Amino acid sequence: MARALEAAGTAPENAAHVAAALAAAEADGLPGHGAARLAAYADQAASGKVDGKAEPTVKQTAAGALMVDAASGFAYPAIAVGLTRACACAPQAGIVGVAIANSHHFGVAGLHVERVARRGFLCLGFGNSPAAIAPWGGGRALFGTNPIAFACPRRDADPLVIDLSLSKVARGKVMVAAHQDAPIPEGWAVDEAGRPTTDAKAALDGAMLPMGDAKGAALVLAVELLSAALTGSNFGYEASSFFTTDGPRPHVGQFFLVIDPGAFAGTAVVERTETLIAAIEAQEGTRLPGARRLASRAAAKTQGVTIPAALYDDIKSRAEATRA
Amino acid sequence: MARALEAAGTAPENAAHVAAALAAAEADGLPGHGAARLAAYADQAASGKVDGKAEPTVKQTAAGALMVDAASGFAYPAIAVGLTRACACAPQAGIVGVAIANSHHFGVAGLHVERVARRGFLCLGFGNSPAAIAPWGGGRALFGTNPIAFACPRRDADPLVIDLSLSKVARGKVMVAAHQDAPIPEGWAVDEAGRPTTDAKAALDGAMLPMGDAKGAALVLAVELLSAALTGSNFGYEASSFFTTDGPRPHVGQFFLVIDPGAFAGTAVVERTETLIAAIEAQEGTRLPGARRLASRAAAKTQGVTIPAALYDDIKSRAEATRA
Repeated sequence: MARALEAAGTAPENAAHVAAALAAAEADGLPGHGAARLAAYADQAASGKVDGKAEPTVKQTAAGALMVDAASGFAYPAIAVGLTRACACAPQAGIVGVAIANSHHFGVAGLHVERVARRGFLCLGFGNSPAAIAPWGGGRALFGTNPIAFACPRRDADPLVIDLSLSKVARGKVMVAAHQDAPIPEGWAVDEAGRPTTDAKAALDGAMLPMGDAKGAALVLAVELLSAALTGSNFGYEASSFFTTDGPRPHVGQFFLVIDPGAFAGTAVVERTETLIAAIEAQEGTRLPGARRLASRAAAKTQGVTIPAALYDDIKSRAEATRA
Repeated sequence: MARALEAAGTAPENAAHVAAALAAAEADGLPGHGAARLAAYADQAASGKVDGKAEPTVKQTAAGALMVDAASGFAYPAIAVGLTRACACAPQAGIVGVAIANSHHFGVAGLHVERVARRGFLCLGFGNSPAAIAPWGGGRALFGTNPIAFACPRRDADPLVIDLSLSKVARGKVMVAAHQDAPIPEGWAVDEAGRPTTDAKAALDGAMLPMGDAKGAALVLAVELLSAALTGSNFGYEASSFFTTDGPRPHVGQFFLVIDPGAFAGTAVVERTETLIAAIEAQEGTRLPGARRLASRAAAKTQGVTIPAALYDDIKSRAEATRA
């Protein structure tokens, strides 16, 4: 995948970051953020909608504040450089906020925060995306599906990772229903007038509903403000598609918080996390968030991942263009 | 109300903080965190379950980290001293984390973060409470209803305040149904075995469901870790009741983040917040989070608030005990 991105004019280091992120999503069983994105990414690098040669810059504006300019490039290298620097600053600052501006699709939010937790810090991550969710009561999408991610270190185990987008269901499910002329369940979406609808086509003209209804809608708004207003980025309704080469650069934003447990309850933080996890696992029928991803990742390590043949061929032919 | 707390052995400064918080909740139309709490607070101060004379202490452990020991006292004075100090540290730190340990019920989460926003900072607040919500798939409550609050400054307007507890509905509604032998809607609660139930009594033996189902349950867990593991406090299932004098001190925790916009996109943060709010308000049928509270507050300013006569009499007789 890295070679296919390089063929589209992406700098090798950036291409390596992006390819690693897509491969990690595939391994975790999240193909929506995996290899299927490669074509759109490469096309946008080729058209200039993404600057594949961008060099992200980091400016420390306070003891615990970093402003990262993704410089219209891919999000992954910008986030990597920002979070690496944040981990270096965290012991002195206690908490470091990392604002990523002029950014793009950041894939699986959980993978970014997990990496920070592997270095011994807690991490919260927020991001916005092109408009999908309407304000509560309204019918025009203003906010993205705006993931919230959280990770914390564990003792002798992979970090605990929580990662959720704030729409009730992915918009892709409505697109499938519309394609099949099938209805959608109530509670998924509203039409243009903000009325609940089971008509998939009307839903595509309207907006997705947030998880948790009015409460979820309030959370979406908070995440939009942290990801975009605080970082100096576009709101969801101002951002162009992550999928096409049309339009200006999306310039969405991400915001991370890196928290040093040493500045708070110290070594007790991990111990107490284990206590709570044990209490959860003692109840039949429960499963820790992220368990399915870790199982998928372990399986991928020995068995690899399976992607559609057409996707494989497309990536291969894009990669071979490098040598032409 | 302050005098009633003093009569129960609360120091005047602490009593003033608590009474102001209860009065503010009443004014905002949130009586569940208002004067109705006074009797339980006073009884706990009298029994020693809350130390009414506690003096909260603040320790700065890093440029952007404060550990506040509520010292088994009321939460309100501890939070006030912690957030005041955080606002002083924020310009240099960029972000300040405030961990409150050995704490108690913190009332309306939105009121704490709103106060920070009035000083020009963004604020996130998290807290846990005695067990009400089970881990997803389980039937035994481990987590509190764990509010998330967010506030940001506006231009020439009250701060935007988002404040939501993570249970789908308040447990009080189930108690009312159980009392009336009435069923509850599906989706509110599970029985002891973790099965969905419409039997209010079975629900009281089981647990409340989170807003947003599995996604919401993951958020509850993240808030529990931030509020309790990070701060060195009790988890929901370890914490005693906020209502009775039984048991050890609840020693729950709260965690706040104070964010200086000046360390990020600067003056653009408020400008862009106004842009987003205008886009929301341009859609018919929408209402900003917190609008109802502000309307209630404005009405209370001219008309006062109404509380039940029995409640008024109880507070009055408790207050008069001071002079005895």
